[in-house]
Amino acid sequence: MDVFHWHITDSHSFPLLVPSELDLAAKGSYGPDMLYTPDDVNKIVQFGLDHGVRIIPEMTHPVSKTHTGSWAEAYPDIVTCANMFWWPAGSMWEDRLASEPGTGHLNPLNPKTYQVLERVINDVATLFPEPFYHAGADEIIPGCWKADPAIQSFLSNGGTLSQLLEIFVNSTFPYIVSLNRTVVYWEDVILDGNIKVPTTALPPEHTILQTWNNGPENTKKIVSSGYRVIVSSLNFYYLDSGHSDFLGNDSHKEEANLVLGGEVALWSEQADPTVLDARIWPRTSAMAETLWSGNWDETGKKRYAEAIDRLNEWRYRMVRRCIGAKPIQPLWCIRNPGMCNTIHPFA
Amino acid sequence: MDVFHWHITDSHSFPLLVPSELDLAAKGSYGPDMLYTPDDVNKIVQFGLDHGVRIIPEMTHPVSKTHTGSWAEAYPDIVTCANMFWWPAGSMWEDRLASEPGTGHLNPLNPKTYQVLERVINDVATLFPEPFYHAGADEIIPGCWKADPAIQSFLSNGGTLSQLLEIFVNSTFPYIVSLNRTVVYWEDVILDGNIKVPTTALPPEHTILQTWNNGPENTKKIVSSGYRVIVSSLNFYYLDSGHSDFLGNDSHKEEANLVLGGEVALWSEQADPTVLDARIWPRTSAMAETLWSGNWDETGKKRYAEAIDRLNEWRYRMVRRCIGAKPIQPLWCIRNPGMCNTIHPFA
Repeated sequence: MDVFHWHITDSHSFPLLVPSELDLAAKGSYGPDMLYTPDDVNKIVQFGLDHGVRIIPEMTHPVSKTHTGSWAEAYPDIVTCANMFWWPAGSMWEDRLASEPGTGHLNPLNPKTYQVLERVINDVATLFPEPFYHAGADEIIPGCWKADPAIQSFLSNGGTLSQLLEIFVNSTFPYIVSLNRTVVYWEDVILDGNIKVPTTALPPEHTILQTWNNGPENTKKIVSSGYRVIVSSLNFYYLDSGHSDFLGNDSHKEEANLVLGGEVALWSEQADPTVLDARIWPRTSAMAETLWSGNWDETGKKRYAEAIDRLNEWRYRMVRRCIGAKPIQPLWCIRNPGMCNTIHPFA
Repeated sequence: MDVFHWHITDSHSFPLLVPSELDLAAKGSYGPDMLYTPDDVNKIVQFGLDHGVRIIPEMTHPVSKTHTGSWAEAYPDIVTCANMFWWPAGSMWEDRLASEPGTGHLNPLNPKTYQVLERVINDVATLFPEPFYHAGADEIIPGCWKADPAIQSFLSNGGTLSQLLEIFVNSTFPYIVSLNRTVVYWEDVILDGNIKVPTTALPPEHTILQTWNNGPENTKKIVSSGYRVIVSSLNFYYLDSGHSDFLGNDSHKEEANLVLGGEVALWSEQADPTVLDARIWPRTSAMAETLWSGNWDETGKKRYAEAIDRLNEWRYRMVRRCIGAKPIQPLWCIRNPGMCNTIHPFA
């Protein structure tokens, strides 16, 4: 595992002390005792390099749900639907405002948005030698943009959400590219989710997409787009990563050829040393199986069963090596291979 | 916390070395290195007593799903549907055979069942000074009994499942009682679940019921039965124990009067030191809140919200005290009281 994808900021907290935008961390972090200073970053980057691990920073900004709330602590004027929550309750996902913690999207119609963004992007590019810059950008919610008066009038005057997307993307891409950084984005930026993505808002071809949730339809779109992908496991288990279409086997050569690599994700808003090893090593093992062996057998069927037996046994090997991976199945299942792999009727 | 309810045996393994039935552990345990000898038990009991903790042993036997499979390793002839699984797939719960691991119910029509049971009960009563004897008995599945030829002919000759229950219960109760043990049973023994429980199969009135899953209907039945109860949390979270009717508040005096105490449960077939602290302390804290404060406010509404804020903050106190309880909510929620307690729309 030679790349550490560091999801540095989120709506909960903006812990990175950005030299040219000190307010973001001063007001958006959990507190002065929970900051990463440039010196901290240098130490982390150097430690990674010393151990053969590249560190890709993610500043999840362009258009993301629940990911820019912390920016609003310093700059409420550039974040739409800041501190608004799931209300209106019962409304459809695309009409909702945001998730808790209260958050929002950066406002594509506010020039200040881009002034702040460029300083942040520039500082982060300076802090991280890595030629890749992860710009996040998943899960846009139109309802959040629609909560903003300026955007409301833009839309009521014939503007469209797709145009907002186009304005935003084309206002941020060039700057990142001008810093000789290859942009990594979540697949959402090219997929028609809550907003139709105009071809004029598509990222440059050398952009890399991180896939996390694609089904057959999205897979087709991503493959035809020709972007290279990083396959990531968000929260999967039992080899069911939800990205099987990208996990190489003979029947999916075309997809497999686009895969630059894979990632095992652990989101940290509810993870810390009390659960880190328990959670990350079982899913890492499952992802390794999936990436190295593919998750189909020769007949094209997913081969959960025999893989689960191996993973379960492997988990006990990890524990014997003092890696506190949590149990995947009862020990009984190891003593009785193949007997625990039926789907539980309550599942 | 002054009582340790030790669920000693289950379908996965029979780890207790019962002096007069050595085959049960010899053949039913995970192996000679994973046994509790009488000497081990004495040490554990003594350690408990030295620390003011009583130890109630549970030998889950009379009529239980997935809990007597390990008995079949030594005595396949007294266990019905041993090593049979969820099949027939898609069938209704009550028609199923058992859960994995392959297991079954003790056969109420086989005299040998009671010979073995009495030796086990007698030895366990000898090993544990505790005046309570927990006899399990949850989750009976008619389909498992129906898999046995002898029972099939019993039923086809006019016998009923309720009669089987009656035969079994009346063949085991007297013996346990004769050893001056108060029986603790899962609530299932008096509830009409998959089998109607005849009044002639009800346990003696001084029996204690451990409740784990009752709703309003079952609660009414348990209350009217007059049995005293132990309220247990199986796997609950956010104060939603599923037993709220038993958790004292003014509107539920009658139920509250029956409560002898509460229990926090952690099933161990998929728990070990890698996850023990992380899992047990958050739910223990939630159960403590529920038992001590009740989980309604004055208006009769469940008061999740403010309790969750307190539990979340309490979790961080535990961590500061080196107790590795897992995160309940993001730290953000502590900085923003009341903001994380809406139900997630995807939940």
